[in-house]
Amino acid sequence: MNRPWKTLSSERLARFEIFSVRADRSVSPDTGFEKEWTILETPDWVNVIPRTPEGKIVLIRQYRPGAGRHTVEIPGGAVDPEDGDPMEAARRELLEETGYRAQRLVHIGTVEPNPAFQTNRCHTYLAEGAVRIAEQDPDPGEEIEVLEAGEEEVRRMLADGTITHALVVAAFFWHALRGGAAPRVDVSPVEE
Amino acid sequence: MNRPWKTLSSERLARFEIFSVRADRSVSPDTGFEKEWTILETPDWVNVIPRTPEGKIVLIRQYRPGAGRHTVEIPGGAVDPEDGDPMEAARRELLEETGYRAQRLVHIGTVEPNPAFQTNRCHTYLAEGAVRIAEQDPDPGEEIEVLEAGEEEVRRMLADGTITHALVVAAFFWHALRGGAAPRVDVSPVEE
Repeated sequence: MNRPWKTLSSERLARFEIFSVRADRSVSPDTGFEKEWTILETPDWVNVIPRTPEGKIVLIRQYRPGAGRHTVEIPGGAVDPEDGDPMEAARRELLEETGYRAQRLVHIGTVEPNPAFQTNRCHTYLAEGAVRIAEQDPDPGEEIEVLEAGEEEVRRMLADGTITHALVVAAFFWHALRGGAAPRVDVSPVEE
Repeated sequence: MNRPWKTLSSERLARFEIFSVRADRSVSPDTGFEKEWTILETPDWVNVIPRTPEGKIVLIRQYRPGAGRHTVEIPGGAVDPEDGDPMEAARRELLEETGYRAQRLVHIGTVEPNPAFQTNRCHTYLAEGAVRIAEQDPDPGEEIEVLEAGEEEVRRMLADGTITHALVVAAFFWHALRGGAAPRVDVSPVEE
């Protein structure tokens, strides 16, 4: 059950602003079963947990058209070809979206947003020693509010559903593995 | 900065097997800036952390065409119209994909897979007292291997990147908040 399916054909169906859609026809080497899969192609994404020298986490708040409301997240975006590597993309997004620059970035985890039908990965960085050095320089249409929150407050926002973006939750999972905000969260245990 | 953008027009661009794409033109009430957004419409999704009476976690392993390889995940899928509610969808997916039924399901968290351009949410359930009661009944083309793992082993799979699906990582984040596998993960802390 380890062998990947063999792709018989792959056809670009449509190209949109932030992703493309293709149809892959492939066959299982174990059963011979053939199936056509709809695949969403995007560049890799990055996100960043910026931490100030005082230990505050830098969050952003912006309108998100998928959800149709403002959401609290961390800085992030797509890796551009000119970024070269994901860490550079993370550094760029941090600066553009918040005006902050960090002393150093540490890769703390990578997830696949949805391996069932998306090709890309999302790389998470902890940006240590983040301080504001410039004005924000967001993409057209991006109106981004920057807020600093203590680890305790971030913990509350994760537990009470203020932070809902799956990739941000995953980012704080990695942060938690390293001793950050989340592991100390104390909610009622599941009753037996 | 709290008012949602006003949608001026919304147009279905394409419909695919598992999602549709639409273009929304909307305007910021704060700045008057107009922008067209590409939006991915899907049903809500669910996933389930099944736990056996012995405290094992039930995982599945299957080929994922987005990633192009087999991945280790937890049971889950889309909420069908006939499910009525997400918890029923979770119960159905658990049974279809693993042949397990649980004594009870508890909603432990909800995330948005990507509020930037996806409309849907993913609801996570803990399925307590899960035992195998039937053969698997997967969708055509689904070949699903079922494995039981201790919380320690799940913890290792999360920390070492065996489990990479963002929505599964988020699910174990909620599980961790309730005292499950992850909070005891001990990796090297970030060096200062």
